[in-house]
Amino acid sequence: MNTLGESFVFTSFGESHGKAIGGVLDGVPAGISIDFDMIRRQLDRRAGRTTEDNSKLPTSPRATREMDEIEWLSGVLDGVTLGTPIAFIIRNKDARPEDYEWLKHSFRLGHADRTYQAKYGIRDYRGGGRASARETASRVVAGTIAQQLLAERDIQISAQLIQVGEKTDPAHFQEYIEQIRQAGDSIGGIIECTITGLPVGVGEPIFDKLQSHLAFAMMSINACKGFEYGSGFSGVTLKGSEMYLSDNQQLISGGIAGGISDGSPITFRCVVKPTASNRQTFEAIRRKSDKARGKNIGRHDACVAVRAVAVVEAMTALVVQDLL
Amino acid sequence: MNTLGESFVFTSFGESHGKAIGGVLDGVPAGISIDFDMIRRQLDRRAGRTTEDNSKLPTSPRATREMDEIEWLSGVLDGVTLGTPIAFIIRNKDARPEDYEWLKHSFRLGHADRTYQAKYGIRDYRGGGRASARETASRVVAGTIAQQLLAERDIQISAQLIQVGEKTDPAHFQEYIEQIRQAGDSIGGIIECTITGLPVGVGEPIFDKLQSHLAFAMMSINACKGFEYGSGFSGVTLKGSEMYLSDNQQLISGGIAGGISDGSPITFRCVVKPTASNRQTFEAIRRKSDKARGKNIGRHDACVAVRAVAVVEAMTALVVQDLL
Amino acid sequence: MNTLGESFVFTSFGESHGKAIGGVLDGVPAGISIDFDMIRRQLDRRAGRTTEDNSKLPTSPRATREMDEIEWLSGVLDGVTLGTPIAFIIRNKDARPEDYEWLKHSFRLGHADRTYQAKYGIRDYRGGGRASARETASRVVAGTIAQQLLAERDIQISAQLIQVGEKTDPAHFQEYIEQIRQAGDSIGGIIECTITGLPVGVGEPIFDKLQSHLAFAMMSINACKGFEYGSGFSGVTLKGSEMYLSDNQQLISGGIAGGISDGSPITFRCVVKPTASNRQTFEAIRRKSDKARGKNIGRHDACVAVRAVAVVEAMTALVVQDLL
Amino acid sequence: MNTLGESFVFTSFGESHGKAIGGVLDGVPAGISIDFDMIRRQLDRRAGRTTEDNSKLPTSPRATREMDEIEWLSGVLDGVTLGTPIAFIIRNKDARPEDYEWLKHSFRLGHADRTYQAKYGIRDYRGGGRASARETASRVVAGTIAQQLLAERDIQISAQLIQVGEKTDPAHFQEYIEQIRQAGDSIGGIIECTITGLPVGVGEPIFDKLQSHLAFAMMSINACKGFEYGSGFSGVTLKGSEMYLSDNQQLISGGIAGGISDGSPITFRCVVKPTASNRQTFEAIRRKSDKARGKNIGRHDACVAVRAVAVVEAMTALVVQDLL
Repeated sequence: MNTLGESFVFTSFGESHGKAIGGVLDGVPAGISIDFDMIRRQLDRRAGRTTEDNSKLPTSPRATREMDEIEWLSGVLDGVTLGTPIAFIIRNKDARPEDYEWLKHSFRLGHADRTYQAKYGIRDYRGGGRASARETASRVVAGTIAQQLLAERDIQISAQLIQVGEKTDPAHFQEYIEQIRQAGDSIGGIIECTITGLPVGVGEPIFDKLQSHLAFAMMSINACKGFEYGSGFSGVTLKGSEMYLSDNQQLISGGIAGGISDGSPITFRCVVKPTASNRQTFEAIRRKSDKARGKNIGRHDACVAVRAVAVVEAMTALVVQDLL
Repeated sequence: MNTLGESFVFTSFGESHGKAIGGVLDGVPAGISIDFDMIRRQLDRRAGRTTEDNSKLPTSPRATREMDEIEWLSGVLDGVTLGTPIAFIIRNKDARPEDYEWLKHSFRLGHADRTYQAKYGIRDYRGGGRASARETASRVVAGTIAQQLLAERDIQISAQLIQVGEKTDPAHFQEYIEQIRQAGDSIGGIIECTITGLPVGVGEPIFDKLQSHLAFAMMSINACKGFEYGSGFSGVTLKGSEMYLSDNQQLISGGIAGGISDGSPITFRCVVKPTASNRQTFEAIRRKSDKARGKNIGRHDACVAVRAVAVVEAMTALVVQDLL
Repeated sequence: MNTLGESFVFTSFGESHGKAIGGVLDGVPAGISIDFDMIRRQLDRRAGRTTEDNSKLPTSPRATREMDEIEWLSGVLDGVTLGTPIAFIIRNKDARPEDYEWLKHSFRLGHADRTYQAKYGIRDYRGGGRASARETASRVVAGTIAQQLLAERDIQISAQLIQVGEKTDPAHFQEYIEQIRQAGDSIGGIIECTITGLPVGVGEPIFDKLQSHLAFAMMSINACKGFEYGSGFSGVTLKGSEMYLSDNQQLISGGIAGGISDGSPITFRCVVKPTASNRQTFEAIRRKSDKARGKNIGRHDACVAVRAVAVVEAMTALVVQDLL
Repeated sequence: MNTLGESFVFTSFGESHGKAIGGVLDGVPAGISIDFDMIRRQLDRRAGRTTEDNSKLPTSPRATREMDEIEWLSGVLDGVTLGTPIAFIIRNKDARPEDYEWLKHSFRLGHADRTYQAKYGIRDYRGGGRASARETASRVVAGTIAQQLLAERDIQISAQLIQVGEKTDPAHFQEYIEQIRQAGDSIGGIIECTITGLPVGVGEPIFDKLQSHLAFAMMSINACKGFEYGSGFSGVTLKGSEMYLSDNQQLISGGIAGGISDGSPITFRCVVKPTASNRQTFEAIRRKSDKARGKNIGRHDACVAVRAVAVVEAMTALVVQDLL
């Protein structure tokens, strides 16, 4: 379903090339002043328009079209929350369904088109419908409100790209992504997120562990193929003696023990695969399909992980606020 | 909380050194003959008594004590399910609380003792209470019933150890684990699980994706530090062109697209860290604490990942049966 | 919270005198043609504009302003559902906040103003905010879609007013309500709802009984003070021998046994209290409050039960569709 | 399903004539001393052994057999809660399946036998299985723990019988019920429950209203056919002017406004129908069925409402503790 959370509940709606996308956020206390600028900044990061975390990454030609204007429908009066559900929409101004008409009869590789068709028997072929990353804009709006609520308790959430392809030095990310783009290709990335200020005791054994909820939320992000915290997968080669006698327990534990936050910073990572929508895969399809001939490839990213950073922060905030 | 699932609901209870552990499984259809032998076999794998997946791994000195006898309290009449909640218990016969008495005043490294104490203000110091791996026996009982229900639809779940430390050849696992044990140490492992026969269409966008539910369940397993499916973390270095034009799409996709099963086998992996309860860490604590002097280290595993294999299968079955 | 259902999930938002009210309906299958006329008719019944069930009841001076125009934001393409969340809004065109300004400093008797203020510390004093019956228009939109889905399985839901004050003959309702209105007063009513065509087996012991879910939903309707099914409260004076040897078991059972539908029609009733917003109570407040002097009483109903009939049908449909 | 609550979660299991009934209560804070005597007293009220609320009602010949002994399996150490799930069982000592053997091929009127058979295709014919009132003993154990938690916050829950048949004077209840029993018949009753000390603000608009949750829980009690709060069904004949200008607003409101507690006592009522298992209905069945000839009618109540009083308190406590 399209609803997340038990006491801080986010519902998302909207197809990427329909009339609008939007969301409803329930459980926000009354009397909070919304920081609309922060929401704008996070949407800009998600859209690839700004790069405060990794400066000037030339990632997204989509950036200009998505100067998303949010309409607030309920839950806010004079910029202050009412305690009632906050509903908002972002209209899809620059929908260009004709770009996607040829897809009506062909499936894109590596997209959810095929499973949607099989499951629903119908498919909004325009830009992937719900499976499109466009939907994550709603998550960022809601998640940023959650971040504001958390900031009032001095809980900070901060994500950043730590690897692009084989590159692990952020200084090289921009140049490398540009090379990938020139080649008409795309590349994956790893995002690391840190939660600081979280009090001890967040998370519940045995089926509401903090890492379970974080993993659940991260795996719902498009293109995310893996989640790990603390020592993660690299811990497989560590011996117990090395691990527990290490000087940096936080690196090992990730700030969680027995499913419960231990008061130290929480650290986790997720991996974002490269998008299938690049020139090389497009041309491969075109060679097989007459209908695609002469058509436009659409507007796609060389490294979607760049834009996923803001989404990771948003989803983390939604989860943490719900658990508190 | 200690309840998992919406329509196929498992509730777990019991402290590792209390009177009993057990569970309640709700949502099992009426009229199913329970295969008690299969439950026994899975409990044996979990207890390290048998090694059908990786023969003769000498992993667990705990094996002998846990000849778990299950008492079926409800939901079953003459071996056939009634459609009512199935409740079962396994009594803790060989509880040796005196082994743990010294822990009353000290915390074990890398265990949940500290966070439990902080959260609950009280702690059942005997064997880790709920945080102990003993609790996973209840999961295996319930999960095996789920596996039987799935098998009736020709859905098979099969997990195995694919890496121990740096070893990736199963032929070397047994010898390597024995070396680790001799050294009084412990080592991590990676488990791979495959679901075959799953029809297309399982999972729901955008917050009930199949991978989200699988990750949620896997991360609830003690010592599991990471989850990935399909190309997983290694996908970070793949280019989009390599990924989508690959001959083996299933390896890349893991059998899931857009959060929905695509009809091909589902493949995911999780990493299990080494246990902290080994002789080397124990001795390190002993050097700091007089109370620990002369005491027994308890009975612990050189590679808990071996025993986690059956738990991975069980949790996978619970998730899949709930989603169906 | 403002979300109802597990697999057929309705989320409601919007303050009565804010920008818009609306809803998100998740879990609607793809490929269903929406009957927009039926939605219109049900909204008309709710608004007191039409009276197909009890003809020409002159109930609502609000009727003219609420020629609600629904904007469909997502989930529907060319009138056919996509299987994605259906979001819709109804803008509040004729919001007249100045009518309610005087309420900023006084509480209305019998309204939720006081508890909202206590709970949220802030209150959207304009027309009761979320507690206003205006919000039920969203329920009717969503519920009517549910009714359409049910009708495809030959399940029909039909509610009607069976008592107004002491009158139980529908022929007298219109005249009596008009008398009450002339007196500047208001009166309660009892609504009976029947579900026909429901297959045997809907509902689950012991905490998902059909009557539990129906009662939950009905009690969420503004002004509803009671729920009963089958013999209901009148059954207190029946003896067991009379009850079970009666010729009409359906009247006694209400079509439910052990929490599960038995295949016969389901019959339940709910009582709707008179609204507090009538001229007589208004004048009583005015005598105590200078600020209220000379102000308008707003536009209120002599018998809100009339308008609640469509809401009862809508909520019933949401519950039944979710349980199926 | 058999699980109730979100953060204070009760799971019930066990067939009435199976091995045991029991429950798991999750979300109880650590460090609470359980008052086992209070649990005993409430079980005695439910079993009809004591009559502290309505003295010496000679209701239940079942009383002697149900000297229920509770075995505590987990969650409690030395009488103090651990914060982990509390599991308990009550063994069915005096199961007499042979009394019910004849029912294997006939359905009892007014029981859930028929719907269970239709839904599950199998049925534990012994004493109604899950549909039996025996199951409510588990609710009383769990609910009494909830009452203890509430009492620590000075929240008291107290239910009593206010009507039996047409009798509304408690002084006449005992004599009247005895007459009914002599006649081989059964009679219904109305129970009123009051919650005092509940702070303002409990309950959430619009789908988690306090009255919705109370109604949901009450309607899950066997034989309960209706729920009302405040003015309830009798409010249908009150005019708005009488209602809101009344001197006793609490009687009208029931202590709830807009779905939220207003700080005054909460008052609600539910009606319990007479049991079908009395001599007169039994003989009617016997006349139709040879198999029933010469058999025992079992041990049943002339007024089950008497025993339901403790169950109403228990369910109320579970709901209130969950909402807090």
